[in-house]
Parts: sequence; structure tokens; C-alpha cells
Amino acid sequence: MTFDLDIKNTVRTIPDYPKPGILFRDITTLLADARAFRRAVDELVHPWAGSKIDKVAGIEARGFILGGAVAHQLSAGFVPIRKKGKLPHKTVSMSYALEYGTDEMEMHVDAVQPGERVILVDDLIATGGTAEGAVKLLRQIGATVVAACFIIDLPDLGGAAKLRALDVPVRALIAFEGH
Amino acid sequence: MTFDLDIKNTVRTIPDYPKPGILFRDITTLLADARAFRRAVDELVHPWAGSKIDKVAGIEARGFILGGAVAHQLSAGFVPIRKKGKLPHKTVSMSYALEYGTDEMEMHVDAVQPGERVILVDDLIATGGTAEGAVKLLRQIGATVVAACFIIDLPDLGGAAKLRALDVPVRALIAFEGH
Repeated sequence: MTFDLDIKNTVRTIPDYPKPGILFRDITTLLADARAFRRAVDELVHPWAGSKIDKVAGIEARGFILGGAVAHQLSAGFVPIRKKGKLPHKTVSMSYALEYGTDEMEMHVDAVQPGERVILVDDLIATGGTAEGAVKLLRQIGATVVAACFIIDLPDLGGAAKLRALDVPVRALIAFEGH
Repeated sequence: MTFDLDIKNTVRTIPDYPKPGILFRDITTLLADARAFRRAVDELVHPWAGSKIDKVAGIEARGFILGGAVAHQLSAGFVPIRKKGKLPHKTVSMSYALEYGTDEMEMHVDAVQPGERVILVDDLIATGGTAEGAVKLLRQIGATVVAACFIIDLPDLGGAAKLRALDVPVRALIAFEGH
């Protein structure tokens, strides 16, 4: 008997979404599965149990679900990285590449104090444009980015390699080849 | 000495946001405070420790941060209630009142099984339009809504009373009079 829970089979794959040829990895079925969600969060936080993490930064919107749970479990503060125009106080912003064109993400300028140790959390890393922007934003206000954590990595799209090239350790629980 | 932590003073009030005359209650300062965030989540889940909660439903986007932490802490599944057009699988939808006009929220049709016990979570309840829509959406697919939980209640805006009129117990940790 093993205590290992296979969470990969709780991810739903939706073909041709949002457009033909794309296999969309839908984590809502993983989140809705109490055991899989519990396991995913516990596995994400495992390497930092007992170490000092000041803040967990979550990327809007699915990164909020996991980031909130990870921050609570580590007794850390939570920092939202949001789409432009959603935060009420003074922000710093960073543009990031989309498939066509760019968009902007924002964080409160006082969300992290210089030198604080921060873990970045999102549900999935693909090309890594958003995560790369988030790392730069965090470093801009003086954070030490300890690691970036994801449930799913799509390694063929190169996002994890892009973060490692920025000296950010990457933790992903499961991977899907192709995209 | 008391072990009680005052979390109310960690909420930042921003005058005239998003428009003149509004006092915006900004919870990002509470979330970023490790002790206040930990305390808020622990207080939210306290009444259901040891009881059977199948799912926690969080309302996009700030409800995801708290809902994810509450679901993990209760070992329940998490269900996102999202703005229209964000969910990849078959959905049910519900319109809700905004200050001017209406908007629509969606949930996956298979997110909750009939009879499952669900807690609804959001950061703040004001007029209650969104929370009321979420309760109706959950009941439409057969959920038993055990309670609705918020960090902040603005009681003068009547949202909590509106939910109680639907026989939904409301739990809010702090209240601000006026709006």
C-alpha cells in the first residue's frame, strides 16, 4: 500500500479550448476533489515547513486559490498580483508578453518590505511570461524570491527554464508534455 | 494579557475610492499581515472544525484567496464562482445586480453534487447582490448552503440581512458602520 495520491488524474483536459488545437488543462476538477486539493497544497508547502517565509504572492486569479492556502499553511502574509486597475492603493506595474501583444500586472508598492522572503504561486506555468513579470515586480520592490511554485508545468513551452535562468528555483507537482 | 488579535486595525481605509464619498475597505493590508491573515482564516473555519463540509465556494477574485485557505484548512474541495466567460467546461449562470445594471456569474455545472454541504466565502459583504446570486446558483445545482462567511460586513448596506432572509447563516468577523 502506498500513501501517494495521484493528483494528475484529477486534472480535466478540455480539447480545443480556448481555440482549436489547444488542450486546456482544467484544474477546477482537482480543486473540487478534497483529497487532491489538500495533497497539492501540502506538497507545495512541504520544502518550506519550518523555514522563514514572509510572504506568498499569488497571481490573479487561479493563483489566489492556491496562494491563499499556501500562505495560511506557512503562516505567511499573502500578496495579490493583479491585473491592471484592480488595486486601490499606490502600485508598481510590469508589462508582460501575451500571445499577441502585452498586458500589465500590478502589485501594491508596500506589499513586500525589502529583503522579505517571498514564494510566488500560480496554478500552471506555460510560456512563463506572467511568472517572469511577477518575479521582476517582486524584485523591483526588494523582495527575495525564494521559489516559484505551480501545480502544473508544461515543460515544452519553456516557462520553468525561463524562471531558472533568472535564478528562481521552480517547483511543479505534475507535468504535461506537449501543449 | 489576552490572546485576542485585533484584525480590524489591519484593514486600510482609502477615502474617495473608487469614487468621491466612498470609504474603500482595503483588505490587502490584512492579508499581508501574517498574523492577521492566519487569525482571519482560523476564525472563519472555527465553527465547522470536525463537521462535514464537502466544498467551499469562493467568489472571484478576493474570495479565492480566503476560500482556498478555508477549503484547505477544512479538507474540503474548492469551487470557484467566476465572472462570465472564464470557466472552460459547461456552466450554470446567474445574473446579479450591480449599482447600475446587472452582471453574470458562472459556476461549473458539475462543481457540486446534489446534497453536498457548501460554505460560501468572500472578503466583504455590502449590498449582498453577488452573495445572493452565488447562493441561488449553488442551490440551483442542489447544494446545501451551510453558511456564508466574510471578513468584513458593512451592515448598513443590508447584505447580511438579505442572506439571512434566504435562510443562510452569515458569519462576519468585523463590521464597519456606514459605507
